[in-house]
Amino acid sequence: MTVADETIADWHDLRVDGDRLWQRLEALGEIGAVHGPNGERGCARLALTDVDRDGRNLVVSWMQDLGMEIAIDAIGNVVATRAGSDPGAAAVMVGSHIDTVRTGGRFDGNLGVLAGLEIIETLAQHDLITRHPIQVAFFTDEEGARFAPDMLGSLVYVGGLAVEEALDVTAADDGARLGDELTRIGYAGPTPVPAASFPCAYAELHIEQGPVLEDEQITIGVVTGVQGISWTEVTVTGQSAHAGTTPMPLRHDPIVVAARAIHEVRLVASERGAPQVATVGRVDVVPNLVNVIPSNVVFSIDLRNTDEAVLKQVETEVFDACRMYATDEGCEISMRTLARFEPVEFDADMIGLVETTAQRLGLSTRRMPSGAGHDAQMLARVCPASMVFVPSVDGLSHNIAEYTTPADIEAGANVLLQVVLDRSV
Amino acid sequence: MTVADETIADWHDLRVDGDRLWQRLEALGEIGAVHGPNGERGCARLALTDVDRDGRNLVVSWMQDLGMEIAIDAIGNVVATRAGSDPGAAAVMVGSHIDTVRTGGRFDGNLGVLAGLEIIETLAQHDLITRHPIQVAFFTDEEGARFAPDMLGSLVYVGGLAVEEALDVTAADDGARLGDELTRIGYAGPTPVPAASFPCAYAELHIEQGPVLEDEQITIGVVTGVQGISWTEVTVTGQSAHAGTTPMPLRHDPIVVAARAIHEVRLVASERGAPQVATVGRVDVVPNLVNVIPSNVVFSIDLRNTDEAVLKQVETEVFDACRMYATDEGCEISMRTLARFEPVEFDADMIGLVETTAQRLGLSTRRMPSGAGHDAQMLARVCPASMVFVPSVDGLSHNIAEYTTPADIEAGANVLLQVVLDRSV
Repeated sequence: MTVADETIADWHDLRVDGDRLWQRLEALGEIGAVHGPNGERGCARLALTDVDRDGRNLVVSWMQDLGMEIAIDAIGNVVATRAGSDPGAAAVMVGSHIDTVRTGGRFDGNLGVLAGLEIIETLAQHDLITRHPIQVAFFTDEEGARFAPDMLGSLVYVGGLAVEEALDVTAADDGARLGDELTRIGYAGPTPVPAASFPCAYAELHIEQGPVLEDEQITIGVVTGVQGISWTEVTVTGQSAHAGTTPMPLRHDPIVVAARAIHEVRLVASERGAPQVATVGRVDVVPNLVNVIPSNVVFSIDLRNTDEAVLKQVETEVFDACRMYATDEGCEISMRTLARFEPVEFDADMIGLVETTAQRLGLSTRRMPSGAGHDAQMLARVCPASMVFVPSVDGLSHNIAEYTTPADIEAGANVLLQVVLDRSV
Repeated sequence: MTVADETIADWHDLRVDGDRLWQRLEALGEIGAVHGPNGERGCARLALTDVDRDGRNLVVSWMQDLGMEIAIDAIGNVVATRAGSDPGAAAVMVGSHIDTVRTGGRFDGNLGVLAGLEIIETLAQHDLITRHPIQVAFFTDEEGARFAPDMLGSLVYVGGLAVEEALDVTAADDGARLGDELTRIGYAGPTPVPAASFPCAYAELHIEQGPVLEDEQITIGVVTGVQGISWTEVTVTGQSAHAGTTPMPLRHDPIVVAARAIHEVRLVASERGAPQVATVGRVDVVPNLVNVIPSNVVFSIDLRNTDEAVLKQVETEVFDACRMYATDEGCEISMRTLARFEPVEFDADMIGLVETTAQRLGLSTRRMPSGAGHDAQMLARVCPASMVFVPSVDGLSHNIAEYTTPADIEAGANVLLQVVLDRSV
């Protein structure tokens, strides 16, 4: 500690300005805002679209206002740095993402980034210069809603995927190439990836996106790790024909295969029980007409478990069932892995730090795995990482009704602030 | 008979020019042509699109070249008339449609219209003036692929649907209003609907669109009637949520409801046996993303049977199952009838005429119901109607691989010619 010694008796007493953080969340949420019929205020900022660019520009302008040094890398990740007093010290990083799903909320991702800016502003306000630099990052295409796999930007950042390969990914919606979209919105930056040096610690504040904290009336989720994720795209090809004239025994209908597979995905997960979850979120039918037996159906399977061995067993069960149903119907079937991440365990010291910090602040805590993937799991490959969860009202996320109370937002940001200070002063 | 008495010893010997008819099929098929990877040559001329307009313009130009009088009615049906010798005689009509499904073929519909023109050209070539006028018609939006219900134009023509209601139908693809699209492509005509007078007979040549004739090596299908058709749009609304964080027991996933319903549709039809057929051809998922439990799923159910009582039973079974699965999942469900036509029996004299005519021409015949809906079933409400089927290779239709051999096309057109002459001379 340097200036802090003079200006603040004890950095442990430092607190964020919850209103200021909330106002930034509101302002960023206006970009790509989606309004629901019952007053819901969601957000649609798919990665590398025009509104993603607008959101990026706003956050970058805030980083500039705070006097941070901004680096944009070759996959469009933005890392803003506030210098520390020790030129040789590695940075402490906080971050998340600001892209959303198509019908997303205003908190998922955005909270982790804007809480980071709130930390910087709080330190600046108190003229506190930490020994370590502090970085606030937002990573490209965390959601994977437009470009698979998800967590793409942080994966490239840590060296888990070659940038050339990532730039060649095409969009699920309009087929655009990721690299072209990145250039188009002006975020193909000069900083090389993977990063030349990594932070000495990473912390990410995020909404839970599930119902557990709210159900148990707990404010802070101490995240112990992340479920393993398996995303598969299944293509079933049959024989398109007239719906009125093709006798049932002569049909090769891919929609029947998909329907049986989708039901099987549900049954396998339900029988297996928690923490196994399984979802089919996407189904595309060609030609998709009332009176035409489809020629092909493409659907996604999302499987998650904290236990890699069980996840593998579930994959085998589900994929075998898909193949069996295709054979029954005389259809062709092919499967393509869109994303596959093994379960991640966060650093024990960082988990403990989040827990003791929250308890010191008088907040209720619960250790829990994350059901969703997060950039933190990528950073965990290169440095001690951890996450702080705050409750999601009704457990909703990836939904325009996503909401977290201002009090919980402020509590979470204060935990993040104290964790960062612990590692950077 | 008038001129014919002088020019043709016996009109029974008159035959069409198969090559000329084939060339017209080829030329019309080029408009909206779709080429497949294995040399398939299909067609995409959805109703009231720019390519539908181009196809209409080409057929109308041929009608003009043949000196026919052209009437375009308020729903865009085009009826071309070749005058007869008796001013008081009602017309004999042949016709069909020229719109296609999104991945359709070059024969479905087009054949019935262009065989009509070939009849007119054959008569003109031989200076044969019939006593009755002969009309060649093409009806708007027979497929129903863009605007439900199918057979919309002929339904309005016979007075089965008010034109105001039909003009207000919106497109399944882009939401355009039918009336606006009709005006846009220049086919909102001045002739009132329903028609002021109806033909004294109607005959429609069509490809079978199924495998029966080819399997039994029969050239001419003598169509006895049309299956009843039930089209329903089912909307299932659940609770959109994050795929990774929402425990299985807390989900309200509409895709699981749809999957179970789609499988049930198959099971009900298969257990019931022929002639029951059942198809789900369309599924739309919102938001349709890998990692989001959908908020709602819309799918279509197409049920057909020649027996109205059985069709009603199947509707009840299928709809009850849909409701039960929605209840199981805690989802809302609603159903909307897109089209509902009772089975149709064609006129016994017309059926007999088609059969004896084909047999007189030395062609093999088989009586059969039509599995698909056709404009003929609408005309059957106002005059004696019948249909002539020719084989579909591999039973394919509503498929770019749809094909019927030139020999079968010519055979079918000659049957149509002789049926028309029988009723018009």
